[in-house]
Amino acid sequence: MKKLLIIGGVAGGASAAARARRLNEEAEIIMFERGEFVSFANCGLPYHISGEIADRKALILQTPQSFKSRFNVDVRVRQEVIAIDRVAKTVTVKNHVTGEQYLESYDALVLSPGAAPVVPPIPGLDTPLTFSLRNIPDMDRILTLLKERKPVHATVVGGGFIGLEMMEALDELNIDVTLLEMSPQVMAPVDIEMANMLHQEIVDKGIDLRLNCGLSSVEQVGSGLKLFLSNGESLDTELLISAVGVKPEISLAVNAGLAIGELGGIVVDEQMRTSDASIYAVGDAVEEFDFLTGEKALIPLAGPANRQGRIAANNIFGAGDSYNRTQGTAICRVFDLAVASTGLNEKRLERSGIPYEKIYVHGASHASYFPGAHPVSLKLLFSTDDGTILGAQAIGRDGIDKRIDVMAVAIRAELTVYDMQDMELTYAPPFGSAKDVLNQAGFVASNSLKGETRLCHSADIDALSDQQILLDVRNPGELMKSGAVEGAVNIPVDQLRGRLEELPRDKEILIICQVGLRGHVAYRMLVNHGFTAKNLTGGYKTYQTVNAKF
Amino acid sequence: MKKLLIIGGVAGGASAAARARRLNEEAEIIMFERGEFVSFANCGLPYHISGEIADRKALILQTPQSFKSRFNVDVRVRQEVIAIDRVAKTVTVKNHVTGEQYLESYDALVLSPGAAPVVPPIPGLDTPLTFSLRNIPDMDRILTLLKERKPVHATVVGGGFIGLEMMEALDELNIDVTLLEMSPQVMAPVDIEMANMLHQEIVDKGIDLRLNCGLSSVEQVGSGLKLFLSNGESLDTELLISAVGVKPEISLAVNAGLAIGELGGIVVDEQMRTSDASIYAVGDAVEEFDFLTGEKALIPLAGPANRQGRIAANNIFGAGDSYNRTQGTAICRVFDLAVASTGLNEKRLERSGIPYEKIYVHGASHASYFPGAHPVSLKLLFSTDDGTILGAQAIGRDGIDKRIDVMAVAIRAELTVYDMQDMELTYAPPFGSAKDVLNQAGFVASNSLKGETRLCHSADIDALSDQQILLDVRNPGELMKSGAVEGAVNIPVDQLRGRLEELPRDKEILIICQVGLRGHVAYRMLVNHGFTAKNLTGGYKTYQTVNAKF
Repeated sequence: MKKLLIIGGVAGGASAAARARRLNEEAEIIMFERGEFVSFANCGLPYHISGEIADRKALILQTPQSFKSRFNVDVRVRQEVIAIDRVAKTVTVKNHVTGEQYLESYDALVLSPGAAPVVPPIPGLDTPLTFSLRNIPDMDRILTLLKERKPVHATVVGGGFIGLEMMEALDELNIDVTLLEMSPQVMAPVDIEMANMLHQEIVDKGIDLRLNCGLSSVEQVGSGLKLFLSNGESLDTELLISAVGVKPEISLAVNAGLAIGELGGIVVDEQMRTSDASIYAVGDAVEEFDFLTGEKALIPLAGPANRQGRIAANNIFGAGDSYNRTQGTAICRVFDLAVASTGLNEKRLERSGIPYEKIYVHGASHASYFPGAHPVSLKLLFSTDDGTILGAQAIGRDGIDKRIDVMAVAIRAELTVYDMQDMELTYAPPFGSAKDVLNQAGFVASNSLKGETRLCHSADIDALSDQQILLDVRNPGELMKSGAVEGAVNIPVDQLRGRLEELPRDKEILIICQVGLRGHVAYRMLVNHGFTAKNLTGGYKTYQTVNAKF
Repeated sequence: MKKLLIIGGVAGGASAAARARRLNEEAEIIMFERGEFVSFANCGLPYHISGEIADRKALILQTPQSFKSRFNVDVRVRQEVIAIDRVAKTVTVKNHVTGEQYLESYDALVLSPGAAPVVPPIPGLDTPLTFSLRNIPDMDRILTLLKERKPVHATVVGGGFIGLEMMEALDELNIDVTLLEMSPQVMAPVDIEMANMLHQEIVDKGIDLRLNCGLSSVEQVGSGLKLFLSNGESLDTELLISAVGVKPEISLAVNAGLAIGELGGIVVDEQMRTSDASIYAVGDAVEEFDFLTGEKALIPLAGPANRQGRIAANNIFGAGDSYNRTQGTAICRVFDLAVASTGLNEKRLERSGIPYEKIYVHGASHASYFPGAHPVSLKLLFSTDDGTILGAQAIGRDGIDKRIDVMAVAIRAELTVYDMQDMELTYAPPFGSAKDVLNQAGFVASNSLKGETRLCHSADIDALSDQQILLDVRNPGELMKSGAVEGAVNIPVDQLRGRLEELPRDKEILIICQVGLRGHVAYRMLVNHGFTAKNLTGGYKTYQTVNAKF
């Protein structure tokens, strides 16, 4: 290996460059970046707009100079590779400063072009008040607009990571925000009943949240914009953030004749090698393999990009390494809540036809008797064949990252819900509980698999048959406070043993409590007394999130 | 199964009772508790003394009445089982209220007597100003003393969990505190260089910390105490907390002729069954098996106790379950720091003769460019045979629980350091880093195992031979600020490539940087240029903690 060229100087490209130099002092390494900045903190951009990251310089992690002095990498910013000649093993570079073009040869090439914001085909979208957010110049443009125009109202289109973060950033700046999301939910990695907890938070913070609502067209009116929505309504706004998703930047790869997959990403093998053995590709532009299903997936996340850059360098310099698929572990802060997930969600499991069961646990971030404990709501998806953990989603104010981190490793280790019972997690009152939410989830799921408990879901409650009755085992005061399902018999769990004769023996009893815990006690009591029953997993709290309307 | 007796109504006993009833409605279940309270939050006691848990009632999780109404368990508080007749299958119960004694028969018996504070044989220790802390009456006595006597100075003997928590609680109440610890370190589950970071925090908070210092004798002088210490000094104090450890309460088991192990705990099998097939034992009183070594261990922690109670009940009622050993995962808050560990520490590995290597990583709790990031110091212990993770210890202000939780599950899943490279943890700037501390540790350990990096330790730096030189690759300003090892050549990493001729080719170069990261860059550069080198794992920061004196 004599000469390595790297196209793209952010996460994956920068990691590849640094790793390559650590492996080899002799090789010439050149990294091209068409923008002005390499190795910047793109995940931090919304937080500098909000002011939470006060110093813009904090976002710039490396400079061409620092790369040169530490890694002897020739970083060429504002220079764009516009063509690859795979036969001659050369690239054509356009210098955006001088306007000149030149050729550079390579022995190995790493593509790290990233993913570009999707520009939806909406008439009139391209206005001076329309922005997407991918890099530091984008951020600077938004900051300039905010400073010069001081908008009172802004509209964010798209409820993914960047959309939610921009919604929060603009709200933080005391700008009224409308969030438009075409689908029924924000934050696609989680299922809708979990997203509904986010919807509640978003609405509670005063955001004008509009789900199932797309942007149809845009008109410039005076100094602002008029947005025409898919529901027939219209909206005046002064700033439009388009954040409907990203798509792999593949034009260079396509023009070079590299294989592109069905999802529109560059095809790579486990060594991150493209269809050309001398060319590697990493990061948001490539199609990855889902850890659990092996299916192709586009997963534009920083962690995988960094890891892939390292692996490409390892393989180029003979260290031999392979990328072990992606789980799509992700987290997002949405005002006071964090939402996170790992593995497969229910939508995906249904699509893939994998037999699964789901349970919900609402626990506490740490010992409930210690100040500052907050609810942690966990959804666990697992195989009905053998209990293998398939996915986990969690929402709450505190301790969400750690529960999903643990589950991410559990999935990677191919653990089952039975193993979750034995998880020995840190416990002291400020940090956890003697039985953590994850242990509880393990108990519930294991009980269900072993047939020791039979669970039902909100849909079963709503589709009650003549052969079933509803039993709510909460205290009457709780029903008043939290609400209740119409038609349910109410016998508090602590009175149940003495009032069994009030229940029918010829019907199936669907048990409801607040979070599913007392329901399990009631369930065991009933079946041990010869009744037929099922317990609503997650209790009324989950029932509410399933049935919430936004 | 007709009749189940449970001796001890806190963690393990209470869990056994609740689980037993969920499995069986018919059995008579009686739980004896010689104290006044069942199912109280013993881990919360120090925090009520400090006032952090304001409401004493918050500590009482269940009452005899709540157990009766929910689980139909006959809870008999202030009634102590004083003898077991294994042939007749009866116990003798003493009612401490009435003074009466009576017999109660059983089909199965669960012992959950817990562990009692060790009372060291120190002359004069037993004074009205001497307290240990095990239960609510102990706590109430300390609170009464604090209120009535308003001590200005208190002494805590023992730097374990309770000792450290009481030290902090008393400090919180503006009482001057001396902490006496006979060994060279507090918090025995971690190794001394990690404990030294705690020692610094404890000293910084104004605690009079005395390590390698035992209590020899106590004299009552006036309204206070004079403590005579093992180092010949003496000390006046007004309150003495004895927290030198706990030992299993086995007198009942001994008198009943049940097998007791070498460590002084009740012997149980994986089903939590004692040497008598009708008698189970759980919690702090039993000898457990270490997850990694299979060796016997005493692990007085709440999580295992709860789990064991559940398992005993499962086996009694035929559900069949076994306890899958204990890792000893633990965490403690010490002022602004958290310290946590899981698996085996270095002291233990040496004792067990297991071949291991250790590495240190000093990372950040979340993206360093996002406000509120704090250092996370991690020690990772792994098998030099195959990279199996053997233990992990972490210290820092934030994110300690989550790193050790992840490592606890990784150990239980028998993952290796290679797997740690692929861990896909939650990342967004407020929560983590694209390359988490745990990924970094995985890289360092894997590089070391694969021979891609050769590591050295602080002891190697201090035992420099003629054939070795020290190279510090930090910037001169850092050496001024943080200190440096005497005799080291200083060439900043970013100048190293141009100054290689200053280094000898016939000696081994031991490289020092601040945390080990730049040292690795320098290491790779040097070996790729034909030098022989080693990198100091954890850098100067670890070197300082190893060599700190308190």
